[in-house]
Amino acid sequence: MDIRSSMLLTDLYQLTMLQGYMEQGMEDIAVFEFFIRKMPPQRGFFLAAGLEQLLEFLEQAHFTAWELEWIAKSGRFSRSFVDYLERWRFTGDVHAMPEGTVCFANEPLVRVIAPLPQAQLVETRLINLMQYQTLVASKAARSVLMAAGKPVIDFGLRRAHGAEAGLLAARASYLAGFAGSATVLASPLFGVPVFGTMAHSFVQAHSDEIEAFEHFALAQPGNVILLIDTYDTEAGARKVVELAPRLSQQGITIKGVRIDSGNLIDHAFKVRRILDEGGLTHVLITASGNLDEYAIAEIVSSEAPIDYLAVGTKLTVSSDVPYLDCAYKLQEYARRPCRKKSEGKATWPGRKQVFRYYDQHGRIAHDVLTLIDDPQEGQPLLQPVMESGKRHVALPSLAATRDYVSQQLRQLPDSLRRLQEGATVDVKIAPALERLARIVDAPR
Amino acid sequence: MDIRSSMLLTDLYQLTMLQGYMEQGMEDIAVFEFFIRKMPPQRGFFLAAGLEQLLEFLEQAHFTAWELEWIAKSGRFSRSFVDYLERWRFTGDVHAMPEGTVCFANEPLVRVIAPLPQAQLVETRLINLMQYQTLVASKAARSVLMAAGKPVIDFGLRRAHGAEAGLLAARASYLAGFAGSATVLASPLFGVPVFGTMAHSFVQAHSDEIEAFEHFALAQPGNVILLIDTYDTEAGARKVVELAPRLSQQGITIKGVRIDSGNLIDHAFKVRRILDEGGLTHVLITASGNLDEYAIAEIVSSEAPIDYLAVGTKLTVSSDVPYLDCAYKLQEYARRPCRKKSEGKATWPGRKQVFRYYDQHGRIAHDVLTLIDDPQEGQPLLQPVMESGKRHVALPSLAATRDYVSQQLRQLPDSLRRLQEGATVDVKIAPALERLARIVDAPR
Repeated sequence: MDIRSSMLLTDLYQLTMLQGYMEQGMEDIAVFEFFIRKMPPQRGFFLAAGLEQLLEFLEQAHFTAWELEWIAKSGRFSRSFVDYLERWRFTGDVHAMPEGTVCFANEPLVRVIAPLPQAQLVETRLINLMQYQTLVASKAARSVLMAAGKPVIDFGLRRAHGAEAGLLAARASYLAGFAGSATVLASPLFGVPVFGTMAHSFVQAHSDEIEAFEHFALAQPGNVILLIDTYDTEAGARKVVELAPRLSQQGITIKGVRIDSGNLIDHAFKVRRILDEGGLTHVLITASGNLDEYAIAEIVSSEAPIDYLAVGTKLTVSSDVPYLDCAYKLQEYARRPCRKKSEGKATWPGRKQVFRYYDQHGRIAHDVLTLIDDPQEGQPLLQPVMESGKRHVALPSLAATRDYVSQQLRQLPDSLRRLQEGATVDVKIAPALERLARIVDAPR
Repeated sequence: MDIRSSMLLTDLYQLTMLQGYMEQGMEDIAVFEFFIRKMPPQRGFFLAAGLEQLLEFLEQAHFTAWELEWIAKSGRFSRSFVDYLERWRFTGDVHAMPEGTVCFANEPLVRVIAPLPQAQLVETRLINLMQYQTLVASKAARSVLMAAGKPVIDFGLRRAHGAEAGLLAARASYLAGFAGSATVLASPLFGVPVFGTMAHSFVQAHSDEIEAFEHFALAQPGNVILLIDTYDTEAGARKVVELAPRLSQQGITIKGVRIDSGNLIDHAFKVRRILDEGGLTHVLITASGNLDEYAIAEIVSSEAPIDYLAVGTKLTVSSDVPYLDCAYKLQEYARRPCRKKSEGKATWPGRKQVFRYYDQHGRIAHDVLTLIDDPQEGQPLLQPVMESGKRHVALPSLAATRDYVSQQLRQLPDSLRRLQEGATVDVKIAPALERLARIVDAPR
């Protein structure tokens, strides 16, 4: 069973509310928008991500026979409701920022326009899909910026929160500019390049470290990257130097070494010297172990001779910001704009567009959030991507999205290209939107 | 496609190492153990969880035709290796702590004893499955302790990291003592009781709040829980009082209200008074919105009249500790004990058992970590659960595991029943284990 497409992967209240909508015939057009409420101080910008998985979900969404049977047997719902669910499909329109778009708090990343019971029911999975990839892509982009051109690789599957998180983290980080991932399944599913070295257990299973290196080289002659820190990092590097001529006679070249513990900067300098003195100037150094954008910034500013950076857990769980304060809120129903006023959680009503303005160097200056019928001079960020439940046009390939992200990152103001807490871009609320909020709030 | 059981949901290096093992005929018995390296200061104990999903994975693990084809086409592996993978099955033994067991740093939660290529290949998914449920169950237990008997419900699916995380969080938190979850799919898959109320969008879609309440009540007459904070919480409570007699005439009783924003304690007192004065003393109050064990402790100590506590995002992502520093390490190969000595990451060698000691009140006093052939008087925590790749005995039901957890929590020392940073239980290393580590480290 593919839990990813199950219609029961939702909150119970979506179903109970749906029965209410059905009974009252409330099937007018609803407009929901997905947005992030606040910038956490550790993030100056986000990269919108997850749209492809969302559109796949919407296109295919339907209740299977066993799901309908379970709902019927649960005793919570009427027979006519189960019949109604059997016919339920998503036939709405979706507007969204293209994946990889730089975005900020209060800006809709996705707008869903559909009959209320359709737009409502997809809420839980929509948030689940959009939040996680946006979270990971946004954090990955920070590593990419700090790495200053060094390739970064995702090693995070094992400590990701479950199967789908590990898989989507590989996609989201590649989209953000990573060179690839260790997660094999991300290659057939998303075309993400996969990378791999060896584990400590391979070394430990041999009684001799140099023998382990040799066996690995023989098994993977085209991809010899040796993990040298199982017992003593510099001793490991000397064994690599000792082994190299022997492998060379068999036509095998050592491509790299990996260091995974201790002070990575310090070890990298020492290992580089040992390799160079041993004539192995071509052997590249990969560093891993507890890396994130902060550690990468240190490595780069130290000028440590590290060629590849592998980032695992802290990326995959977005350890400093493990969730976004995000929501999918009803902004209009049956042509009546509405908003939630709950304390600290009020939202902007109506169908909105984000317009982006640039300075004379092509860097993002500010955004304007307003209603779609209040056009501005700036660049509009939301585009139609789905019409009547079908994808409007083919989404760009992941490779094209990566190029787009790299452009987007070049447009960031300098303050967002550093790890500067609290820096962000101003999102101005247009007078037309302020006005609508006042009208909506007026006592009825 | 069920990504949860895909053999490609692994790190590339597992496959490259496996080809090395195959070519060298390294198929002797390996012993790996899964453990958590360090207690984070915010956790005094863990609850082991995830074993059922792990054993299912091991029992069913095999490469499908398309996976083999992808591996063959990748150009990284030999034809004989692909044939070897086609025959690959897990035929090993597993010893583990029962799910729900209280545990601490350095203690093996799971031991795998299998031919090296089997024990190696399952590493990535084993960690992925065990870490996440242990993480969530451990955090959920803290909420259960702080709630002091009030039922706690998981509302976290939408902000979980993907589909599997949301689903397993429902299981892990129920196992730890939650009353249930809003995640529907957790009911058919795990038998977790599901709970649900209504969302703000339901209220907003109506032009009148009281009409929204009435429509919801008519649709779900057996489960009328009304969300009252969309516009003004106390005004919402007064509308509930106004509506109650009208519903009562139709034989419908309002079961509860939910508050999701603002100062929950303050609102609860005010809402309780409004309900009581309106004759609705039987109507229960559910609080949600940014709750975790810390907020629950405050609520309980304030004696706020809150009956149900719904915990979402902060549980599902384990926001204060979003990952565990955990590992699955080779401790013995071909009867030779071994360990990794990498700086800051050294592990204890050999096959180990944890023995638990209690004080005169039946509370956990300390644990002893030693070799399995060094029996102690304490209670041994690891038990055989799988033999030759088949489950040894049926695992306890989730309901039985919940009872076991509630016993386990009663055995915690007082310091671990509070949210006291840095408190934990001493895990003593037995002399026999210290001795083995010295022998293993001796220069060869």
